[in-house]
Amino acid sequence: PAPARVLSGAAPAATEFVGTTALGDTIGLVIANVDPQIHELMKFDPKYKSIGIIGDRTGAGPQIFAADEGVKATNTEILSIELARDTKGGAGHGSLIIFGAEDVSDARRAVEVTLGEVERTMGDVYGNEAGHLEFQYTARASHALNKAFGAPIGKAFGITVGAPAAIGVVLADTAVKASTIDVIGYSSPAHGTSYSNEVISTFTGDSGAVRQAIVAAREVGLKLLGAMGATPTSTTTPYI
Amino acid sequence: PAPARVLSGAAPAATEFVGTTALGDTIGLVIANVDPQIHELMKFDPKYKSIGIIGDRTGAGPQIFAADEGVKATNTEILSIELARDTKGGAGHGSLIIFGAEDVSDARRAVEVTLGEVERTMGDVYGNEAGHLEFQYTARASHALNKAFGAPIGKAFGITVGAPAAIGVVLADTAVKASTIDVIGYSSPAHGTSYSNEVISTFTGDSGAVRQAIVAAREVGLKLLGAMGATPTSTTTPYI
Amino acid sequence: PAPARVLSGAAPAATEFVGTTALGDTIGLVIANVDPQIHELMKFDPKYKSIGIIGDRTGAGPQIFAADEGVKATNTEILSIELARDTKGGAGHGSLIIFGAEDVSDARRAVEVTLGEVERTMGDVYGNEAGHLEFQYTARASHALNKAFGAPIGKAFGITVGAPAAIGVVLADTAVKASTIDVIGYSSPAHGTSYSNEVISTFTGDSGAVRQAIVAAREVGLKLLGAMGATPTSTTTPYI
Repeated sequence: PAPARVLSGAAPAATEFVGTTALGDTIGLVIANVDPQIHELMKFDPKYKSIGIIGDRTGAGPQIFAADEGVKATNTEILSIELARDTKGGAGHGSLIIFGAEDVSDARRAVEVTLGEVERTMGDVYGNEAGHLEFQYTARASHALNKAFGAPIGKAFGITVGAPAAIGVVLADTAVKASTIDVIGYSSPAHGTSYSNEVISTFTGDSGAVRQAIVAAREVGLKLLGAMGATPTSTTTPYI
Repeated sequence: PAPARVLSGAAPAATEFVGTTALGDTIGLVIANVDPQIHELMKFDPKYKSIGIIGDRTGAGPQIFAADEGVKATNTEILSIELARDTKGGAGHGSLIIFGAEDVSDARRAVEVTLGEVERTMGDVYGNEAGHLEFQYTARASHALNKAFGAPIGKAFGITVGAPAAIGVVLADTAVKASTIDVIGYSSPAHGTSYSNEVISTFTGDSGAVRQAIVAAREVGLKLLGAMGATPTSTTTPYI
Repeated sequence: PAPARVLSGAAPAATEFVGTTALGDTIGLVIANVDPQIHELMKFDPKYKSIGIIGDRTGAGPQIFAADEGVKATNTEILSIELARDTKGGAGHGSLIIFGAEDVSDARRAVEVTLGEVERTMGDVYGNEAGHLEFQYTARASHALNKAFGAPIGKAFGITVGAPAAIGVVLADTAVKASTIDVIGYSSPAHGTSYSNEVISTFTGDSGAVRQAIVAAREVGLKLLGAMGATPTSTTTPYI
């Protein structure tokens, strides 16, 4: 995996720049006072004159789970989360996440926290030449996960992602059979994704149950994706 | 072209695994008893407790025409066909096809038949560095082609696909001028595709007329795509 | 950058072929008399029996600004502009542009003019391994820009595009702060694009103001995208 470059010494002379990491080609930016014309077209509440911005080519889950820590740690709101069909020729999404704040220092801090978390949240992203798997877990979901996935705030929450989507179907079924969880969502290429080649399942429950569901799905997923090519490897270090 | 690996000896120790082929990175899976929570989110009729799953990174037409043979050969229904925007950086779709059955052996058999047909249905997929062409033909359309394209069941049916989409426009026009066919559909990047860079035309008619339309379109398509790069080559062996 | 191959000696023996350029894998085609079945499915006014077609894998802005010159120079109409999610694994769009004409020579000429302009309109497209930037400017927008972006006909018009989309947010904000312009549109991955990983802003105003906005945005954009990888380079030669 490529090393993270967060707030490196080579920062460009642009006031909007916060940092970048090569993980997923992720960049963090901030605008202290969004221009009123742009602000209106974005349809955001005018009170959030400062925005923090996370964008990337590869990954929605990793950046959204990271942003969930960003919003927990700061006085910000999640204004929007949009998923592009990207991953640089891969099967999944890139993302655009916007934090709102009344004070630019809060927006900047949310972006910094998010960039710092991506190393961890890329840990249960596994890939080979045929596709990818992603698993995420939090003991306590906050506003980013609520906005993106309808996660109940303050509850344990997890997701499974399989690409090609066929594998994601089996992950969803395996997770719910392995544990007592409540499935919140099931997204597929034509329903709930941006036409990515993924099935994404999302669920809540007791903290231990959510983890157990993920662990079971991960075990099956690695076998199935591995049958299509090389043994799938973690992007960084597994955390679940 | 990569060799097919169907039901190879290296099958993973997962009960859901049926087989895989490197053609289009296609995998076949089965779930004997879909979990009720997932089943409901999929919005499938509960009587189909077993599902067969075909998923791939590259190809919708080849897998759908293959699945049409799968559904003809077995006691299954096509529950859903979804097209991802994929092809690993190419201009087209990947797909997710789900068969429903009351008995798991039927679902498994439908998946096996489909995997076995992909070698043939990749035969009139031609590509070079600039794009691709696809032609498919059947003398007798069944439920997969009806579900995906509105093909009249039991009738001859064909499709032309050109990418970049501009070439697909000429294929559609050439096909219908070359023969007495009834055009059923015309899909383009913003209408009827998952934003793929393709124009897809679909048509029915007498068996000979459908073939004649395809042969004429194929001849023009190979010239036009060839003008953008190398001579387009078949993925396996042409069958039309 | 790859050299343009417009109307080269190796033109294929297909009456529909007009020319091609390796820039963006762009092809130009013409159909003298569109078949009535296809014409009806395309939903075009029957009086335009001849159509000119521009299609490409990489680029919407460059081909649309080029087509704007094509429509200015000929007796044609823009019948449709569709954006595929493409760029061969990149973050943006490919396009399909259709001109209508009552006389095939007009359709052919519009396509020729468009192909000839792509060399210029690729000039302010900059890329590196992480993403791309695009800037376009015209002193006088015509029907292609009106159709695609709602540009006011006869007025100066410009666009900024940044990918990943996070950079495009800053470009939009920078452009409008740098100059007195009227923002017409703001598109993002989930709103107004074909799920590309871009933010596209479009604006009008005095000719000098539109250029000034673009120049300011370009300066910031090159710094930000450069922070994610190599120094972004022009695809051909900058024209703004």
